[in-house]
Amino acid sequence: MPPPAAHPGLPTLADSVRLAEDGVHILDRRVFPFEHRWVHARTVEEVAAAIEDMVTQSSGPYFAVLWGMVLAARETAGQDPATARERLRAAGDRLIATRPTNDQPRKAVEWVMASVHAGGDDVAAAALAGARAGDADYRRRSREMGRAGAALLPEGGRILTHCWGDLYLVGLVEAALEMGKRPSFVCTETRPYLQGARLTAETLAEMGVDTTLITDGMPASLMRAGEVDALVTASDRVTMDGHVINKVGTLQLAVAANAFGVPFHALCHAPDPASATGADVPIEFRDGDEVLHTLGRRSASERVRGLYPAFDVTDPRFVTTVVTDRGAFAPDRVHEYWNEERGTAR
Amino acid sequence: MPPPAAHPGLPTLADSVRLAEDGVHILDRRVFPFEHRWVHARTVEEVAAAIEDMVTQSSGPYFAVLWGMVLAARETAGQDPATARERLRAAGDRLIATRPTNDQPRKAVEWVMASVHAGGDDVAAAALAGARAGDADYRRRSREMGRAGAALLPEGGRILTHCWGDLYLVGLVEAALEMGKRPSFVCTETRPYLQGARLTAETLAEMGVDTTLITDGMPASLMRAGEVDALVTASDRVTMDGHVINKVGTLQLAVAANAFGVPFHALCHAPDPASATGADVPIEFRDGDEVLHTLGRRSASERVRGLYPAFDVTDPRFVTTVVTDRGAFAPDRVHEYWNEERGTAR
Repeated sequence: MPPPAAHPGLPTLADSVRLAEDGVHILDRRVFPFEHRWVHARTVEEVAAAIEDMVTQSSGPYFAVLWGMVLAARETAGQDPATARERLRAAGDRLIATRPTNDQPRKAVEWVMASVHAGGDDVAAAALAGARAGDADYRRRSREMGRAGAALLPEGGRILTHCWGDLYLVGLVEAALEMGKRPSFVCTETRPYLQGARLTAETLAEMGVDTTLITDGMPASLMRAGEVDALVTASDRVTMDGHVINKVGTLQLAVAANAFGVPFHALCHAPDPASATGADVPIEFRDGDEVLHTLGRRSASERVRGLYPAFDVTDPRFVTTVVTDRGAFAPDRVHEYWNEERGTAR
Repeated sequence: MPPPAAHPGLPTLADSVRLAEDGVHILDRRVFPFEHRWVHARTVEEVAAAIEDMVTQSSGPYFAVLWGMVLAARETAGQDPATARERLRAAGDRLIATRPTNDQPRKAVEWVMASVHAGGDDVAAAALAGARAGDADYRRRSREMGRAGAALLPEGGRILTHCWGDLYLVGLVEAALEMGKRPSFVCTETRPYLQGARLTAETLAEMGVDTTLITDGMPASLMRAGEVDALVTASDRVTMDGHVINKVGTLQLAVAANAFGVPFHALCHAPDPASATGADVPIEFRDGDEVLHTLGRRSASERVRGLYPAFDVTDPRFVTTVVTDRGAFAPDRVHEYWNEERGTAR
């Protein structure tokens, strides 16, 4: 059994990775919303395997890595602090390697390691404090980014989204509802895992938002008919020159939005200073077999080969706005996000 | 049991609607290729219901309507010719009404009615002759169109296709293979019915063509990477001003192809002289519940509403070529197809 919710006001998926005395409990997104089944990861390796196996995704791995690092720190009990820190670093490397495209797991590891390096000899206590700080920071930034994004939405607008933006999307919707904007949503189902059908549509329904589901091929036809006011997605990474890396399919929607005059707003806490341009971001290719199945059943015969690039790269020319926790930027100016940190005007 | 194949050299689906003494036998495309189950339609009404229920689709309804009209003619045995023709007309109206967007069922009815009106008092014999002529005509035109389309493909080209182009695609592939062009194909799976995964990919494999399956969200990412040489789809209708109406999702691919410099060739026996522009073509909206299921299993919870526009309209600006049985036309010149019939130079 998972421990009780730490954030009882939030939708189910926004509190679906939980630390307990006996390990990390991760809601299995592969079967949600049809089943509420929790995977119990007792070790760092089990946390890593759960991420690789898509038990959780989107913002989920960030939290799983935070709490996985706490498990790693517990496993160092009795070791001298230098050895413990080395073992934590190795655990962090293992967790970061689970998914190559999204860089949030790396940031989660950095939260814990920074605290451990600053925190004296009680490595386990320092790791827990770091993980908690990382948890709070991610939630705060998602809310701030959500407010900046909601400000861009028209009153009563019909918003198209793709895949599952997790806390980014929850932050946006909470803010839009607070502003009285009464948004309605159109969700792509997002094959092969159907995150849009199972995670996004369900969570929007939990939040009381009017929601329509379409297949991944339908968005352009709705845009052409004038039935979409904005395309909004999360992003796994935004580069310093404004390329948006996100779940495969995002590019196609952004191209269509551009062709039909629909603005595309990409949500991202901050552009990645380590990624100058799109070609710098590794794109994860998952097993092509995943494309040949739907909800566990084969969709094509054994004669057919599948191909699964899990993410795609959207060029800045197809992006209207990158929405960060420091406000909205045109894609060609998103690098200025980092100037602000140093007090420079945007 | 269905009667033996009338075209034993062709792939399974190219000979999947067959007339027999006891009715029309229609291969159930909803379960192909996992099962080879034939639906036995004994009456016109059963043929119509099979089309509405998606037992067959793409070119399938054309053949089902041809043979359904033969059943209707048989049902008139003993009636005077005028009454028989009236009843045939009513049967034709019922069959045409099964799917509003594709106009091939109407053409199938016209083949039979023209023969019946020209054929004297043996209505059943005339109907059968008309249906056979319509069958032969459709196959001949598909082969001619296929040759014109194959001529546009590069040697060893990687061709993206969407949904299931049926005899149009078979004609294209046969011609390309005869020309030694060694094409390979990328198929979108085409949700919600997965025609691409189940029908297109399987048939291409039957024809010995290298085939890769992707989800409906992935094409633009492959185009951006330079991995697609041409987009080729069938069409349910092409208007006189070059709008292409086809399975929903085609528009999105055409827009992406245009953005990334990939040519889009739409296959169509002939533009429809009764459709001046895209707005003249009725777009079928099917039950939104079909979007909420995949291979019979629910993909979203009961809280979610689905929307299913079954076709979309691609503007001429996103179309490179309309390939007809009289050769290839730029979309803004496709109306000249009908000049040729009157001997005018193109």
